[in-house]
Amino acid sequence: MPELRKDPIVGRWVIISTDRAKRPTDFVRERFQIKGGFCPFCPGNESKTPSEVLAFGRAGNNGQPAQKDSPGWSVRVVPNKFPALGIEGNLNRRAEGLFDKMNGIGAHEVIIETPEHNLSLATLPEKRVEDVLWAYRDRILDLRQDKRFKYILMFKNHGEAAGATLEHPHGQLIALPIVPKQVVEELEGAKQYYIYKERCVFCDIARQELEDGIRIIAENEDFVTLAPYAPRFPFETWILPKRHESAFENSSSQMYENLARALKQLLAKADAVLDQPSYNLVVHSSPVQEPTNDHYHWHIEFMPKLTKTAGFEWGTGFYINPTPPEEAAKFLREARVESKPAAPKTEPVTTR
Amino acid sequence: MPELRKDPIVGRWVIISTDRAKRPTDFVRERFQIKGGFCPFCPGNESKTPSEVLAFGRAGNNGQPAQKDSPGWSVRVVPNKFPALGIEGNLNRRAEGLFDKMNGIGAHEVIIETPEHNLSLATLPEKRVEDVLWAYRDRILDLRQDKRFKYILMFKNHGEAAGATLEHPHGQLIALPIVPKQVVEELEGAKQYYIYKERCVFCDIARQELEDGIRIIAENEDFVTLAPYAPRFPFETWILPKRHESAFENSSSQMYENLARALKQLLAKADAVLDQPSYNLVVHSSPVQEPTNDHYHWHIEFMPKLTKTAGFEWGTGFYINPTPPEEAAKFLREARVESKPAAPKTEPVTTR
Repeated sequence: MPELRKDPIVGRWVIISTDRAKRPTDFVRERFQIKGGFCPFCPGNESKTPSEVLAFGRAGNNGQPAQKDSPGWSVRVVPNKFPALGIEGNLNRRAEGLFDKMNGIGAHEVIIETPEHNLSLATLPEKRVEDVLWAYRDRILDLRQDKRFKYILMFKNHGEAAGATLEHPHGQLIALPIVPKQVVEELEGAKQYYIYKERCVFCDIARQELEDGIRIIAENEDFVTLAPYAPRFPFETWILPKRHESAFENSSSQMYENLARALKQLLAKADAVLDQPSYNLVVHSSPVQEPTNDHYHWHIEFMPKLTKTAGFEWGTGFYINPTPPEEAAKFLREARVESKPAAPKTEPVTTR
Repeated sequence: MPELRKDPIVGRWVIISTDRAKRPTDFVRERFQIKGGFCPFCPGNESKTPSEVLAFGRAGNNGQPAQKDSPGWSVRVVPNKFPALGIEGNLNRRAEGLFDKMNGIGAHEVIIETPEHNLSLATLPEKRVEDVLWAYRDRILDLRQDKRFKYILMFKNHGEAAGATLEHPHGQLIALPIVPKQVVEELEGAKQYYIYKERCVFCDIARQELEDGIRIIAENEDFVTLAPYAPRFPFETWILPKRHESAFENSSSQMYENLARALKQLLAKADAVLDQPSYNLVVHSSPVQEPTNDHYHWHIEFMPKLTKTAGFEWGTGFYINPTPPEEAAKFLREARVESKPAAPKTEPVTTR
């Protein structure tokens, strides 16, 4: 008998197949593969991107400051060459009959995670994954000073099947003049729970899951990695801070170190169990202009793209998940991955 | 400058690219193609599906009634062989700590639209498209008698890229013990508008769009086919009844005739403009156990699957649409398609 399970935050029901559960080998693979060719994100091609807004790791030469848009960086952030939104201008909110619109004002940046084309967040040393997280934080702190921006979306599409158009490891950041509907729903769902229980729903989930253990994939001092109770997709995984914190960018330094560890470990486990899947990673965090709160709890959602075809959910907004989260969690929990990072070729010097 | 546009029903903002708008030829195609092979939906293979729950067009022989699960049908409805939900049992709603679940009770049926493997709703005669609509209606009238079912989802995945696993023309119907979240949002958004304006938002949209004309694709006596103001996907199209009606199954006979005409015409136009795209079709209708109402207006949403990769939206719930609906509407509006249906090989005799 399949189960209908309800997501406790947004109230979405999903069908979880329990009879003929799909195991990792049952999915038609779209394995992530390096094809090569010219890459605008590789060192030496810095002139092929818009001029950088941030770079870590570039050392100066003989007391001279390092040259902008030159090689030697370990993480580099540049505006998207084909931005979805324009940075200049006013919002000019207005009506069009009964409809509402505004100018597409916003920032769209690319976080180039490493100079090495063939590495990934799963294979980079932990310290360098941490650098990537610091780059996101630094950009948020800068962008949130622009009061036009209400929300900053941090996400990563890895692999063609997940929507990536370039294979060089990179993430993205979109600063928006509105809070996306899906975020509003999460915020409101969490607030409703808080009003009723006077506790954060994510804190309650983390606590119950750590007691139960069946959907836990990993944990460290600051983070718990788990399969959510009502996942939309097979092997969907969340990384939650153990202590309540409403925004990604307000975390302490130690948090980024432990998040890097948790993130790299999850991606390495997914690579092992699911044979290098394409995936989407999204950071869910509070709107940047709002004060910290007691009801919303930032976290990361990881969604591997395992099925070649996934049309049903597009149209209906209703999800059928062929892999129970307890089984997905077991596969990922039991996957053995290197806990020691490989030594980097050259130790990056970050300028932060 | 891109535009941010708000869907007036659910309040979702989408980015509409206006500068370098993508035209039909700019999309990487996943053209619908017939590959052949054994087909459980073709006449003669009736024993390969679960026993039919409805069939139109099968004539009796020498005064004997037609034999069930035999050839001769024009539309055939069978339970899904691999149903997402089970039909027998109680819901047994219960808690699992802070989580909520219930048994996956529901019906999952397949509407085989024609015996001809190589035809489609775009190429079938209008009268036979109408028969398919009647089959949906008849199944809803039957299924809604089961009070466990709160919502009946009608949808069609056409082509592998849209999630279809079989190429023989078919649609699906899932009867659910809950109302899907996306439907709840539409219902509530429409209700809010009604409370404020004392008019149906869909009626207002149809009226304004018919006056404006720029997003209109086609119209007939009962239906208007249009590109919505804030579409999530390129070439997303809605078919709306001109007169207010909250549920698909309550429409008059004439409505099905004109809906068949509108639907066939849209699919033929899409085939012409977008080179036989894969697509999802979803009927949005009121919950089946609720009385008719003044605020919700049933309609059909058509979403061609034009981009090979569409990962971004999965994770973020935020949509970037590279084709303004005004341009999409123009392409579809101007596409010339046969208005006269091809004569069917044998005139189907429906038993309804």
